[in-house]
Amino acid sequence: MKNILGREIPEFIEGYGKVKLFQGAFSNMGTKERKAVKANSAIPNDKKLLESIDEVIDRLNLKDGMTISFHHHLRNGDYVLNMVLEAIAKKGIKDITVAASSIFPIHAPMVELIKNGTITGIYANYMSGPVADAVSKGYLKKCAVMHTHGGRPRAIESGDLHIDAAFIAAPTADTYGNINGVQGKSACGALGYAVSDAEFADKVVAVTDNLVPYPACPIEISQIYVDYVVSVDSIGNPEGIVSGTTRITKDPVGLKIAKMAAEVIKASGLIKDGLSFQTGAGGTSLAVAAELKNIMKKDKVVGSFAAGGSTGYIVEMLEEGLFNSILDVQCFDLKAVESYRDNPKHQPMSASMYANPHNKGAVVNNLDIMILGATEIDTDFNVNVTTGSNGVIMGGSGGHSDTAAGSKLAIIVTNLVKARLPIIKDKVTTITTPGESIDVIVTERGIAVNPRRQDLIDKLKKTNLPVMTIEELKNLAEKMTGKPKDIQFSEDIVAVVEYRDGTVIDVVKKVIE
Amino acid sequence: MKNILGREIPEFIEGYGKVKLFQGAFSNMGTKERKAVKANSAIPNDKKLLESIDEVIDRLNLKDGMTISFHHHLRNGDYVLNMVLEAIAKKGIKDITVAASSIFPIHAPMVELIKNGTITGIYANYMSGPVADAVSKGYLKKCAVMHTHGGRPRAIESGDLHIDAAFIAAPTADTYGNINGVQGKSACGALGYAVSDAEFADKVVAVTDNLVPYPACPIEISQIYVDYVVSVDSIGNPEGIVSGTTRITKDPVGLKIAKMAAEVIKASGLIKDGLSFQTGAGGTSLAVAAELKNIMKKDKVVGSFAAGGSTGYIVEMLEEGLFNSILDVQCFDLKAVESYRDNPKHQPMSASMYANPHNKGAVVNNLDIMILGATEIDTDFNVNVTTGSNGVIMGGSGGHSDTAAGSKLAIIVTNLVKARLPIIKDKVTTITTPGESIDVIVTERGIAVNPRRQDLIDKLKKTNLPVMTIEELKNLAEKMTGKPKDIQFSEDIVAVVEYRDGTVIDVVKKVIE
Repeated sequence: MKNILGREIPEFIEGYGKVKLFQGAFSNMGTKERKAVKANSAIPNDKKLLESIDEVIDRLNLKDGMTISFHHHLRNGDYVLNMVLEAIAKKGIKDITVAASSIFPIHAPMVELIKNGTITGIYANYMSGPVADAVSKGYLKKCAVMHTHGGRPRAIESGDLHIDAAFIAAPTADTYGNINGVQGKSACGALGYAVSDAEFADKVVAVTDNLVPYPACPIEISQIYVDYVVSVDSIGNPEGIVSGTTRITKDPVGLKIAKMAAEVIKASGLIKDGLSFQTGAGGTSLAVAAELKNIMKKDKVVGSFAAGGSTGYIVEMLEEGLFNSILDVQCFDLKAVESYRDNPKHQPMSASMYANPHNKGAVVNNLDIMILGATEIDTDFNVNVTTGSNGVIMGGSGGHSDTAAGSKLAIIVTNLVKARLPIIKDKVTTITTPGESIDVIVTERGIAVNPRRQDLIDKLKKTNLPVMTIEELKNLAEKMTGKPKDIQFSEDIVAVVEYRDGTVIDVVKKVIE
Repeated sequence: MKNILGREIPEFIEGYGKVKLFQGAFSNMGTKERKAVKANSAIPNDKKLLESIDEVIDRLNLKDGMTISFHHHLRNGDYVLNMVLEAIAKKGIKDITVAASSIFPIHAPMVELIKNGTITGIYANYMSGPVADAVSKGYLKKCAVMHTHGGRPRAIESGDLHIDAAFIAAPTADTYGNINGVQGKSACGALGYAVSDAEFADKVVAVTDNLVPYPACPIEISQIYVDYVVSVDSIGNPEGIVSGTTRITKDPVGLKIAKMAAEVIKASGLIKDGLSFQTGAGGTSLAVAAELKNIMKKDKVVGSFAAGGSTGYIVEMLEEGLFNSILDVQCFDLKAVESYRDNPKHQPMSASMYANPHNKGAVVNNLDIMILGATEIDTDFNVNVTTGSNGVIMGGSGGHSDTAAGSKLAIIVTNLVKARLPIIKDKVTTITTPGESIDVIVTERGIAVNPRRQDLIDKLKKTNLPVMTIEELKNLAEKMTGKPKDIQFSEDIVAVVEYRDGTVIDVVKKVIE
């Protein structure tokens, strides 16, 4: 079978199941069901606080074949996933599926557990490091499933992804399971990615290194969703949890791209009161924010909201009155954590509120401008941020396809050539985000606008910006690098790339070592 | 059939269905299911803002026999319920069930709609005024169902009460359905009673008189639950929404009872760091708070939380550092609204978090001390706050049986005689709260402790407080008033009194006019 983007995908994938083919960004919509959930009625004097992770696993009655979930707010500083999996492995439990919103290099101990059959399945929105390598090499028994940040809560809420037990890394928790992310030595800010897990898992455990008396204040995740609380020495390494500061790039190419991107935004006509904006924490993306800030200040424009993953840079824009609020699913740096804690205009959103396509309206639907990166782009504007040029998994959508789908203007900012490889190709290795959601690509050598956006092409033609077709941009790149060789893959599927609506947009095949 | 309290209840009640008998406060617990919910996937550019209540009703496709819900945060100032029902009646829609968390005198126009068959069913946690009278007289086609504040979200979440459309009176809403209760001319504070409606109704409408640009800030109820937004001139009369201030009684009898109640609390040993406390907004209840405050100050005790329905008086205790936080489901006065808006220690809780017996642990489970009122008490300590001495419905549990069940010490404070009628009877007219949940009754003439609490009897005997048996207290009252005559009822059931767990604790029969 081929999906609408021409990707060859089997009807049935062993270890995944029957495939629903991707048929366009908004073709699988309509009335959808949030699943029923069972909860254990608490009686006064029932205690939730347990002694150890070991006791938690016993009380949960974790068994072979179950699915356990984790969230990634502690990023590359997270200790909780490893801690829980180590305890599970010690008990000899096998065939566990790990549904982690993201997997980082710190989770390297998973590789051994993959090899010995403790872990046989993985769901993640993003993975990089040893686990991603192991998946790419076919070590995982079942194929991994790559979600988007909005697709994950969709899958959890619909029941497509059933979680037997969710482990919530809780920077602060009280004895009855109320949780916040803003206090304690492992404070990480907003806890948006953990919300659906808490609401829809069969059992929910708060793992904290800052146990406080009842009630926690503030409460971000309520006691009504939490079965057990366990206190441990440390849930994470603060250095890996939040960076001290996220910084604008100093690279002159990056700065040039950012300037051009800002001119594209200006030409689009979207810079006016009430505008909304989101960007990642990368240096070039932040440089676009800096350019946008200058324009907004000069033109005295006040935006409605910036969406985050938030950074100190976006916080400064809020504090300077350039936006009325921040809607935030996670905080990338310390300044963002502090702002989220102290400024009532810096508001939380769950991952479902952020980006789930099947609720009554996610925040991405209201985004005007979205700044995105890319590993590869093809001449249909399809974007790959899942696999590297060697075919190995090194990322994933995260919010890429969610925000691209929702926003009025989705801009890819990227160097035209990276590591002597052209960014624009005939076919990307893996499709993460469909071309229909991408409006414009800005590189230091030229700008290509999706032909679907004739309105934007017309507007940009009135500027001095180097607008060209994507084919022209591709040729420009290939002149610099030569045409890259195709990568060789085996026929084995190691990962299914699910679009945010649960359809399959692509598969990742095993790399030939 | 008789339930465990000896109340005669049919196995099947016409217009209600099969009866599950009350069998004790915690006999219907265990694993319970939150039901599945259907939602309509929103596509970017879908608009939620409609022109009028009329258009809303058309878009909802409201039909004969449907159930619509309202919440009572605007109390006796609420315009929304009448406004919506008037529009429904004009369209000739019949056989509507109104699930309103409470019904007040301002909802008198419902009576005509009950008589003409527009409204044939009612669910409420509390009702007073013309609608309660009409129900008592048997005008409603089906029998009404009286919930508790925790039983209502339980019923909604479990699917026992299916809501086709929820109308949320929104003091502030943005164009995409984010709602808060703290801004706008109709600001009422916390919106705890509306949360389950928003989460579990098929369709959800925000009715606002303060439409703000996207996104509202703060957001108390999220866009992901709201289908439509409609702006109207006024959702309520500010004078009826919040009282200027709630005041401590000046009645010397009330003050005496409060002093005695405080001495009971002190003797119980519960006044220590970390204590938790809730009281209603009545004058005597607030006087107990005042007494407690003095003791806490003198003994330098800091409590963990006060639960609300909050009042300015409780807010003062928070501000003076006597509690670490307030957990609040609704605000009774302006000072409470302001505190909830401005003080991060004054935190929201949904009605489910407040009191639902079937989630993973409600706040009432953590209450130490609860001060309650009573209309009648019987010698088994059963309490009636549903019907008056004439048998007519004049209230309902609200949070009465929820907090009584959850708290360590549930104290009834009441005058021994009211309107020349004794408060203590052989059998109460209607059982709202089972005697097993009530620990002590404090009247100006004497104190009776539930024999289940021998520990408390022993402690109180060491004080100078006038402790006696409930029979002695009853005799004391009857000496003053004579034994009251029994009220005559017809055999027709006009209301089913559901305990918080969904079992039937009593029924209300039609009064003979």
